[in-house]
This record gives sequence, C-alpha cells and structure tokens, in this order.
Amino acid sequence: MNPINNLLNEAKTLYLTCPSESTAKDVVLLAQGEGGRLMRKFIHERIVPILGTSTIEDAVRIPNGAGELAITTDSYVVSPLFFPGGDMGSLAVNGTVNDLAVAGAEALCITLGLIIEEGLPFEILDRILQSVAKAARECGVAVVAGDTKVVPRGAADKLFINTTGVGRFRSQTHLSCQSIQEGDILLVSGPIGQHGVAVLAARENLRLTPEPQSDCAALHHACAALLDALGGDLRAMRDATRGGVSAVLHEWSEASHSSMKLDESKIPVSPEVRGVCELLGLDPLYVANEGTFVAAVAPASVDLAIEVLQSHRVSGSAKAIGCVLRRQSSPVVIERMLGVLQPVDEPSGSPLPRIC
Amino acid sequence: MNPINNLLNEAKTLYLTCPSESTAKDVVLLAQGEGGRLMRKFIHERIVPILGTSTIEDAVRIPNGAGELAITTDSYVVSPLFFPGGDMGSLAVNGTVNDLAVAGAEALCITLGLIIEEGLPFEILDRILQSVAKAARECGVAVVAGDTKVVPRGAADKLFINTTGVGRFRSQTHLSCQSIQEGDILLVSGPIGQHGVAVLAARENLRLTPEPQSDCAALHHACAALLDALGGDLRAMRDATRGGVSAVLHEWSEASHSSMKLDESKIPVSPEVRGVCELLGLDPLYVANEGTFVAAVAPASVDLAIEVLQSHRVSGSAKAIGCVLRRQSSPVVIERMLGVLQPVDEPSGSPLPRIC
Repeated sequence: MNPINNLLNEAKTLYLTCPSESTAKDVVLLAQGEGGRLMRKFIHERIVPILGTSTIEDAVRIPNGAGELAITTDSYVVSPLFFPGGDMGSLAVNGTVNDLAVAGAEALCITLGLIIEEGLPFEILDRILQSVAKAARECGVAVVAGDTKVVPRGAADKLFINTTGVGRFRSQTHLSCQSIQEGDILLVSGPIGQHGVAVLAARENLRLTPEPQSDCAALHHACAALLDALGGDLRAMRDATRGGVSAVLHEWSEASHSSMKLDESKIPVSPEVRGVCELLGLDPLYVANEGTFVAAVAPASVDLAIEVLQSHRVSGSAKAIGCVLRRQSSPVVIERMLGVLQPVDEPSGSPLPRIC
Repeated sequence: MNPINNLLNEAKTLYLTCPSESTAKDVVLLAQGEGGRLMRKFIHERIVPILGTSTIEDAVRIPNGAGELAITTDSYVVSPLFFPGGDMGSLAVNGTVNDLAVAGAEALCITLGLIIEEGLPFEILDRILQSVAKAARECGVAVVAGDTKVVPRGAADKLFINTTGVGRFRSQTHLSCQSIQEGDILLVSGPIGQHGVAVLAARENLRLTPEPQSDCAALHHACAALLDALGGDLRAMRDATRGGVSAVLHEWSEASHSSMKLDESKIPVSPEVRGVCELLGLDPLYVANEGTFVAAVAPASVDLAIEVLQSHRVSGSAKAIGCVLRRQSSPVVIERMLGVLQPVDEPSGSPLPRIC
C-alpha cells in the first residue's frame, strides 16, 4: 500500500463528503470544529446565542474589576500525539501562551486539564507531561492548577489536554481587528502551513525527505517586542491556527469592513510544505500553523516591524505579504505568481482534522 | 435481563478487577481518575514531579502580582450526559463555581472548552449549553472565553467539557486544611452520596422509586455566608466530589496531621441512597457528591455555622458529623450505629467511574 495513494484517496473522500450546509442540520460534523466558516457559524449561530455571551473565542478581558487580565482556553486533541517539531504537550502550552501573546498579554499562569483514556502507557503520558513542563519553563509560565480524568477504553482517543491561560496585558494599546484600516500592511511571521503538513505527514506516515517540521513554538517574545516597538501602529495580531492564514484574514475582513489583498510571491512557504500541498491539492493558506502569526500594521511602521520580528528566531523570516483595501466584493484576494487576481475563499471545513 | 443483577455482576467485576498497585505500573487505570488514593498517588508521584509544580489540584492563588485571584480547572466526562437532578452542563458550571466557593472565592468568570464527538445531535448539545447558560446565570458568573473541538466518531464519547474558573477571594482569611486543629468540628452541608447514586441509577437504568436525585448545585452563597459569619473559625471547606466524604477527610487528616472521627448516626443519608448502597455493598462515605461540602470549624462556632448553613436551601440539612482528634493510627474512624469504632479506609479507586 502506498501511503500517498491512500492519502490522495482519503483527501478525495474528504472533499467529496465535505458537508454541504444542508446535511449539517441535526448533528455536529467534523468540519464544524476545523476553524473555517462552518465553525464560525457553529459558534456564532448556535453556541454563543444559547450561552448569551457576546463572544466565546480567543483571549478576552476578565470583567468585574479584576484589572486588566486576559483569559483564554483551548483543548488539544491532535492526532498523533507526537509529530516532527512538537507533541500535544508543547502544543498545549505554546498554543495557549500564543493566544494571550497575540492579544498583547503575557501569560501569568496556565491550568492543565487531562482527559486520559484508560490503558494509556505511562511512558507516553510522561513524555507529554515532560514536554508540558519544558514548554512552560521556556515560556516562563507556571502550571498552577490541574484536573485529571480517566475514561474507559474507547471513550477517548488516548489523551486530550485543556489548557487555560491567564495573562496580564502589556500596555493600554487595545489590539483589535476592528482597528484595522485601509492601507495597513499585512505581515506574516514565518513560513506558513508547517504544522498542518507535519501532523498530516506523521499521521499518514508519508516518509518524506526532508520531513516537514511543525512550527510549534511560543510567540510571546516576538509579539511583546512588536507591541512595545509599534504601540498603536500595531493594529492586530493573530496566530494562524485552524483554518490557516485564510481564516484569520476572513475574520479580519469581516470585523474591519475592508478587504485583504495578498501577494502570493511574497508569502513564505517551505519547499516541503509546497510539495505536499501540490501533491494533495491543498493551498498552504488554509493549512494550520502553531508558531506563526499574522499582523496588521500601519504603513509607516512596516520596516520597523519587520526588523523587530526578524531579530527573533521564531519570526526570523517575517515578511510583508499584502495590504488592506477598501471593502470589495471579495473579502480576501490574492495576486497569484503569474499576476492573476483571485478571490481566496473562506475555508469551510478543513481537509485536515485533528491538527491541534 | 434484570438491571440490578447486571449491576451486581458489574460491581463484582469492578471489585474483583480493582487494580492492585502491582498491575498499575505501566498504563493508566480507570481507578487512577476516581478521586481516591490511587488518584492522589498518580497526581503526586507522577504528574506533579514532572511538571515541577508544588501542587496541581483545586483552586489556587494566581501568582505574580495579579492580586488575590483564585483559579481552578475541571474537565467533565460524566456518563450519561443527563441524570436526575442535573446534566453535564449544570455540573460543569456548578462544579467549578464550587471549587472556587470552598476556597473562599467568588467566581468572576469561567471559560468553556467543548470536545464534541462528530455526530452528536444538536438537540443534545443545545440542551447541555442551555443548562450551562442557566447555571451560569444562577451563579452570576459570565462565560467569557471558549474553545470548540470536534473529533471523529469513536475518538470521544459524545461530549467532554472543561470549565476553568477565575475568582476573587472574599477575605484575607486563608482557608486551608493545614489549619485544621484537634477539637475542630466536622460539618456536612447535606445528605451524602446523592450524585454518584443518581448517575449510577441513570446509567444502569435501575428504575428506582423514588428516583435518586443528584445534589448538583452551586454552593457559593452558602460558602460565602459561612465564611463571612465565622471568619478564622472556619478552617476549611471542601466539596466532596470523587471519592466522597472519605476522600476529603483522608486528605485533611494527612494535611493537618490529625485524625478525623465520624459519628455514623449523625451523617445524613437519604433512604434512596441508603437503599442503593446496601443493595450494591457501597458505603455512602465513598460516593460522589456535587452540591455537598464538608467544613471544619472551631468548636465555639458550631452552632452559628449550622444556623447559617441551614438558612440556605442547598445546605438546609447541614449537620455536625464528627470531630478532629489528635493523630491516631487510623487517619479516619467512624463510630457505627451500634457503637463500634471502625477505621474508614481511604478509597483507592471508586467503584463508580465517570460520575463527573
């Protein structure tokens, strides 16, 4: 059996069975958790109205006089647990630290909720916990509270981790995608699509050379430096996880009532990721990242922003990849290598489930 | 098939296969998540050392100058999702609010992490979310951040919820089981074992009359009133969840280097719970509660404590059930109805998995 053929078949099946909205009426579909339009609809049309909250995503301010604290929560269900460049443990810490970092906050502490399938070898659990501890140390964040549940065999797939992070905002600058303006420049902190492709290659045992590596990393230093250097000229940052860069730009477009234009020739993509994407008919713009973020900055501060980002290892190949335009018919467009301008659709469901 | 016979067989199997420590060496066992000695060992000997934190349970103070904030996290994996007296949604809110309440803090906000199995009917999800919203409203706590993951069919059992709560301490009184002293009186806020028995009866479809009801409820008003009335005469409070009252008292005994003596005739147990426990050979002291807490108070304040608790519906049948003795050979002892003094073993694993 050729794993790539298998995967092509699987990818085909995924596309062919990609749920139309008409089939998504009565039960939850995988695509509703994958970071695209279906997930956004699911959260905003089903979850948020029932909870009666204004929103329920990413880092938010803690209300009621608790000062300027930020809080964020994420569950991690990545399969496999280990992949080149990271594992569920490092992902669970970095992902939550990053959600705070892109909101302009530094993590004070995180909590750790473990849901373990009965029979999980201690050796696996220990390696994941060691990875949690190492990532937390590297981020300078304490794991302060925890919870451990064990469910019977078959009731979960090996291990799920929830981390919730509380952070302190670094400044009064209120980062928000609503402050993105026409003329702003869009930056990306590094090559895109690394995480999704690395997890896919590990899961399907593609045996590629060189092996694609996840970008799983903590972005707090780079984000803090950018915020400190740019102040109000930094409009918004967002780590481009599920749904990739495309999902971020679609959200930003909607929130800021403007359109986002990308220049394909400027978007950093590694040869490994490009190869896998071409083979499988994926667009790296839709593939998840776990240590790469998008920023919108005022045009006057672009050079400073790039200089600051390139001085940090995690964002050493930061680049300007596009700009913000007055709202047009397409929320996101891309100028392809050959000069054609194409709309970038919002991802509906991702063809790569369980990448985080 | 008689469900009670099935259950008796199952209970027998559970007891017979209850893991000895010698079989628990290489993989995680169900019993290691059930609130007893095995779980305590698991957390303190495996998880905490790897994470390098001092502890990782229940509500803790947020460090680093964030003021007096408390944080707690819990994942909910109860099966079935709905049971008499509650469901996973109310449990997920009340359980986390209660962890803060017994630490002397009032909840400011909670986060909501959903792990949904693909194919979960929206009707089920909606009912659970409505229950989350209702419980949050009743507790006066906002659901401020969330995360939604969907995993393929078979990778999770319907739905798991993580809630993490941040709270503000009500006073400078530092509640701690280390401040429990010889002579202190032990109170329980209501009849014990209701939750575990209700979930068991629902899961096994026991069709009992009257149907045992979970005590699932928010304890914040009762805990706050007790703390405000007693100040430093309130030593510690703890909601008696997994492992029941016995698990709490064993932890307190160890932390305070004293022994706990219970008077069986004073412990409130409803006839339904007593009946199921007698039938299955369970001791209500080991059965989980989700709206019942134990408190240790100075002897001078016992009458006031009972009066305050009885003025709240959730603790209307609060009673003094024992006292704290100088450390003896048994950490917890009970004077049985007929006057015999018996040691109360620490629960190792619970015979009732997935009750929260």
